[in-house]
Amino acid sequence: MTKAPVTPERDIAASGPYALAVDAMGGDRAPDIVLAGLDLAADRHPKARILLIGDEALLRPALAKYPKAARLCDIRHAAASISMDMKPTAALRVRGSSMRMAMEAVAAGEACGVVSAGNSGAMLALAKIIVKALPGISRPAMIAVEPSARGDIVMLDLGANIACDARNLVEFAIMGEAFAQAALGLPSPTIGLLNVGSEELKGDDRLRQASERLRASPLAPQFHGFVEGHDITAGTTDVVVTDGFTGNVALKTGEGALKLAFSLLKRVFQTNLLTRLGYLLVKPGLERMREWIDPRRYNGALFVGLNGIVVKSHGGADGESFAAAVDVAMDAVTHHLNDKIRARLEQLGMGAPEPVAPAAAKAAPEPVS
Amino acid sequence: MTKAPVTPERDIAASGPYALAVDAMGGDRAPDIVLAGLDLAADRHPKARILLIGDEALLRPALAKYPKAARLCDIRHAAASISMDMKPTAALRVRGSSMRMAMEAVAAGEACGVVSAGNSGAMLALAKIIVKALPGISRPAMIAVEPSARGDIVMLDLGANIACDARNLVEFAIMGEAFAQAALGLPSPTIGLLNVGSEELKGDDRLRQASERLRASPLAPQFHGFVEGHDITAGTTDVVVTDGFTGNVALKTGEGALKLAFSLLKRVFQTNLLTRLGYLLVKPGLERMREWIDPRRYNGALFVGLNGIVVKSHGGADGESFAAAVDVAMDAVTHHLNDKIRARLEQLGMGAPEPVAPAAAKAAPEPVS
Repeated sequence: MTKAPVTPERDIAASGPYALAVDAMGGDRAPDIVLAGLDLAADRHPKARILLIGDEALLRPALAKYPKAARLCDIRHAAASISMDMKPTAALRVRGSSMRMAMEAVAAGEACGVVSAGNSGAMLALAKIIVKALPGISRPAMIAVEPSARGDIVMLDLGANIACDARNLVEFAIMGEAFAQAALGLPSPTIGLLNVGSEELKGDDRLRQASERLRASPLAPQFHGFVEGHDITAGTTDVVVTDGFTGNVALKTGEGALKLAFSLLKRVFQTNLLTRLGYLLVKPGLERMREWIDPRRYNGALFVGLNGIVVKSHGGADGESFAAAVDVAMDAVTHHLNDKIRARLEQLGMGAPEPVAPAAAKAAPEPVS
Repeated sequence: MTKAPVTPERDIAASGPYALAVDAMGGDRAPDIVLAGLDLAADRHPKARILLIGDEALLRPALAKYPKAARLCDIRHAAASISMDMKPTAALRVRGSSMRMAMEAVAAGEACGVVSAGNSGAMLALAKIIVKALPGISRPAMIAVEPSARGDIVMLDLGANIACDARNLVEFAIMGEAFAQAALGLPSPTIGLLNVGSEELKGDDRLRQASERLRASPLAPQFHGFVEGHDITAGTTDVVVTDGFTGNVALKTGEGALKLAFSLLKRVFQTNLLTRLGYLLVKPGLERMREWIDPRRYNGALFVGLNGIVVKSHGGADGESFAAAVDVAMDAVTHHLNDKIRARLEQLGMGAPEPVAPAAAKAAPEPVS
């Protein structure tokens, strides 16, 4: 996988002085892990300008402890913040929250994207209202990079939409292709539609319709057809498309199974003196393996399909994982993720917005973390 | 976990001379793996009488090679068989197939259960029409035992019903409890409803309704509430309840992730001479670990909610995994799975049949393998 060099200047010039607006108050250990993450990110994105939004009285002394982060950041004071357990409807009513002001900076063209480790339900609700969906996208979705036996893949929707129709799934395929190009550097990523069997007759009407539309579209050469649960970690396709309920369960089930494997392995190595010696002999390789599938390395889920880059870091993240979320946002900004999506939508004649049916909107009352 | 002793005689007396009717012609390598499996099963269930159904000219000489299996089996000739790729609607039209005759033996009270490694779509369709659903169960489901960090758990539906409503999910909880008692020997298994978050507000109406009904039922003390994908392998609850689409994806995603972990581990051990030595030191423990999560050991999915025990073995199974499927069937027979389900249904006032709404029935045109 090769990537184009990171040149945030391109978008910064087009869109305002800041690459990213960062919500300094989101997450379980904000603002410390946010600043620690930006300090790490500063090495990888030395030219990125960052608008750091939060309680100035708290941030100014804290930032002094992270000199590399301080070089990148301008502080903007926000009087309020959104707590991790606040309901999205309540979060929408809080004026002047750090999360809201970060979204507003994107909407105003001051920044290309937002990163927050805050409440994901609030984040999606604010993003939809302030940053707004791209024309032609009826449902923004949550996407992230995941490990597989054949290298990294991307999967969506990871929980933004509980119920999805055929059109939503086609939109997800378009957004997934663009994100795989931006995040994995693949010119022509393959796409699979998650189902309970790979035969064309399996699944429900919604899946069959989405499959037919993709087969009849310019994406057809990249469309692999239906894939199953085991294809995700096998890396059968570069992009796995599914609804937000199934995607969320699959993501967490896969992570849980890897965790189970490691906990069993630990028991094996701790059996006796010989197995402990065995552990010492394979330790470097095991650590590389553990790092490779480390959820922290894969931190940073992007709400794709919005008029700006919106990235959610895990709420319990540490500095290293927050830095990974910043990488996701910077990749999307510098590789012009949204331009790629717009071009595909136009090519497929889907550029015009289609209003969400009330029944469908009602079926997805709550985004998930 | 303790189990009551296996005493198939109890049910055989009540239900006919045979514990099981076995479809000798189902699966990729039938009848060989079926006979090899019965040979292994004969050691564990020496008193079980088995009605072996298939092409007599083929079976009689083949069975002579498996003397232990031969002692258990009576052969019944079937002139036809169902191929692995036949559609369920076509399979229903084949008279005198080995699979159909096995179902008919159960319906006639000659055998307590069926085991087949054949076409699962055909199997579910035939079971529904010939063995028929238990009164009060609107949707039979597919259930199996899975590994977790806290020991074995059971999960359903693994693919019999693509779309499910709240009532179906409540029925699944009842059937899951009874199966966990029979297969895991747990007197009072805990039950979780798979969702995208554990908060009560997450998910859709269907899940919230099912949760409310379970909280108001005699199952309430065992009902843990919502669980997430990672709870499956963590073993948070003994029973995981979900719809057939999500369950099928979760099952295959978990298996795929464990496979990924093992393939990465293999690479680690093959790095150099030292890591190969390390492998030799931990080999016995690793092999126990691999055996413990071996899909063959977990082979045998039960179509639960029918007027008899119907167990599906994987089509590509070997003798050992077919024997595991026979174990699943024998556990269900000897522990009176269906009596437990009937008692719970009555206790919950759900004993009367409720017809499936046409729209809901249409949403699940094809069961999955």
